[in-house]
Amino acid sequence: MSSVSSAANDRIDADTPDTVRLSESEARALGEGALQRIGYPAEDARIIVDQLIDNALCGYKFAGLPRILAIAGDQKTRKARTPIRVIHETPVSAMLDGGNNVGYIAAYRAAEVAVEKVRAMGIASVGAYNSYYSGRNAYFVERIVSEGYFAFHVASAQPHVLPPGAAAPALGTNPICFGFPSDDGPVIVDMGTASLMWGDVMLHAHLGQPLPEGIGFDSQGQPTTNASEVLKGGVSAFGGYKGYALCFAVQAMGLLAGSMLKSGDPLDYGFYFIALDPKIMLPGGDFARQMSDLVRAVKATPRQSGTDEIRIPSERAYRERDRRRVEGIVLERKVVESLKAL
Amino acid sequence: MSSVSSAANDRIDADTPDTVRLSESEARALGEGALQRIGYPAEDARIIVDQLIDNALCGYKFAGLPRILAIAGDQKTRKARTPIRVIHETPVSAMLDGGNNVGYIAAYRAAEVAVEKVRAMGIASVGAYNSYYSGRNAYFVERIVSEGYFAFHVASAQPHVLPPGAAAPALGTNPICFGFPSDDGPVIVDMGTASLMWGDVMLHAHLGQPLPEGIGFDSQGQPTTNASEVLKGGVSAFGGYKGYALCFAVQAMGLLAGSMLKSGDPLDYGFYFIALDPKIMLPGGDFARQMSDLVRAVKATPRQSGTDEIRIPSERAYRERDRRRVEGIVLERKVVESLKAL
Repeated sequence: MSSVSSAANDRIDADTPDTVRLSESEARALGEGALQRIGYPAEDARIIVDQLIDNALCGYKFAGLPRILAIAGDQKTRKARTPIRVIHETPVSAMLDGGNNVGYIAAYRAAEVAVEKVRAMGIASVGAYNSYYSGRNAYFVERIVSEGYFAFHVASAQPHVLPPGAAAPALGTNPICFGFPSDDGPVIVDMGTASLMWGDVMLHAHLGQPLPEGIGFDSQGQPTTNASEVLKGGVSAFGGYKGYALCFAVQAMGLLAGSMLKSGDPLDYGFYFIALDPKIMLPGGDFARQMSDLVRAVKATPRQSGTDEIRIPSERAYRERDRRRVEGIVLERKVVESLKAL
Repeated sequence: MSSVSSAANDRIDADTPDTVRLSESEARALGEGALQRIGYPAEDARIIVDQLIDNALCGYKFAGLPRILAIAGDQKTRKARTPIRVIHETPVSAMLDGGNNVGYIAAYRAAEVAVEKVRAMGIASVGAYNSYYSGRNAYFVERIVSEGYFAFHVASAQPHVLPPGAAAPALGTNPICFGFPSDDGPVIVDMGTASLMWGDVMLHAHLGQPLPEGIGFDSQGQPTTNASEVLKGGVSAFGGYKGYALCFAVQAMGLLAGSMLKSGDPLDYGFYFIALDPKIMLPGGDFARQMSDLVRAVKATPRQSGTDEIRIPSERAYRERDRRRVEGIVLERKVVESLKAL
């Protein structure tokens, strides 16, 4: 075995005859070109692709460039868009009308406004509505955390999650995300409150694979592992009643982000952010150091035999990101061809 | 059967030879007297008992007056206390040194400061440290919500929860709480991030009852259902890795509340609040109405056969509170005698 192929075997993602390996900049150019061809201005294409590349680098394969094919096929993408604008603000808050722009852009703008506001006032509450699908919350939160701030972000969405005892979905998959600066980089807790990401249900349906037992329901509310049937029904929240309660809380915070303002429907998309400069709490500016202390303390916990390390949220993703920045991003050849054909 | 005993049979709590039924005001007098006899000033006793009575009215039986016996037995209660004071503040924030006062009082003061700040600025971030055990988060959050504000509250604590793969606890049971005003009263989501409340573990140990499988670990990190052994070890987070991530996030927000400032230990108590006037987001003042719309929409979800209603977080507790305010609070006779003997 040559040293070249040996190095290749150590790579985080394997190459196969059906895959293409692209550098980060090649992947960016591919994605931005595709989005511009389906009508996105260069700046919007840059914003969307920046998240998709980050998702791919962090190991969320189907949250990467393949999402452009989903955006291209989404009915909402074909409806009229107006520029995102602030419809109400105070020194510590802002509400953005997303103008039917995809959430990748609307939530990005909301995070930008949150950074401006927190810089001036130490704390900010920002919402965005009249939008849809914002992707991975950790991306927006890291943007705020990279400025040295604490960030809290939730995204309410349209119904896919069944409350306990329900026969139909009533809540979105409603992710919740917390981000903290540390001396060793951002630490981000990002989770859907559904038992499975909706994209995972779609992927299982696409591949004809069954879902795990006990989380999916069909259009009549009957339990099923058939992912195609679950697409017509929904999934449970994670972790039983507590996960449902958390999912409900995110839907309620979506109201603070204006989810009802355009549609009149309390079960709609709302992207909500709170950003805070830790210096308003700890004037010494010690938060990032304390956060590193916490991470070290948790990682130093005695381990079960067979456990290599105690994992900290986001640690794996950011390690993998560092590697893929060097090794490149692996895409299905079919996806690359489809993107080029847009 | 007489109409009187028939009415008694309809009561939410049964009377037995081992129980005593007290009116709300009788229970208050009993609790405040006991606390004053173990050294609490009248105002502090009033604050503590107000929560304990609310917990009892809401159906959290062991979070009621029996807690006074636990406070009386706690080592920290015997250590010197200093008045709670604000050590740092900005127009939108405050940090409180709890002065080794029990969390029932320190978190109450923090919630009061949050209400003052949010009234002036529309948003507030408040922390309290150098304290311990604050009881039920929903109580403090309802105080803020009753003024028409949204509230977010977390409480970090000393280690009882094992991260996945750990052989010893590294995080507190770390509750997280969200509160929303609605036209139909407060709606509050309040949950521990541990798979079981620590008080429940203590209760099981006291009664010699086994814990459910798969959530408890002994002092060596080995799985056990023996509650007394679990008291020397710890429990898992709820809902697998997601619950652990949430538990970790609460510990990190405890740092924002100053958890390290006194002890130097990142695994300590910190009570953290964010309060927000929904009017800074929705200027029409429509939030409470929208929140009622959301509750109605979720409750109107089609149900599984055999399900009477879709439950909304806090709904059961507040219904029961209304009933117990009329019917009274039932306490073990032994508890009443122990309180009188303090």
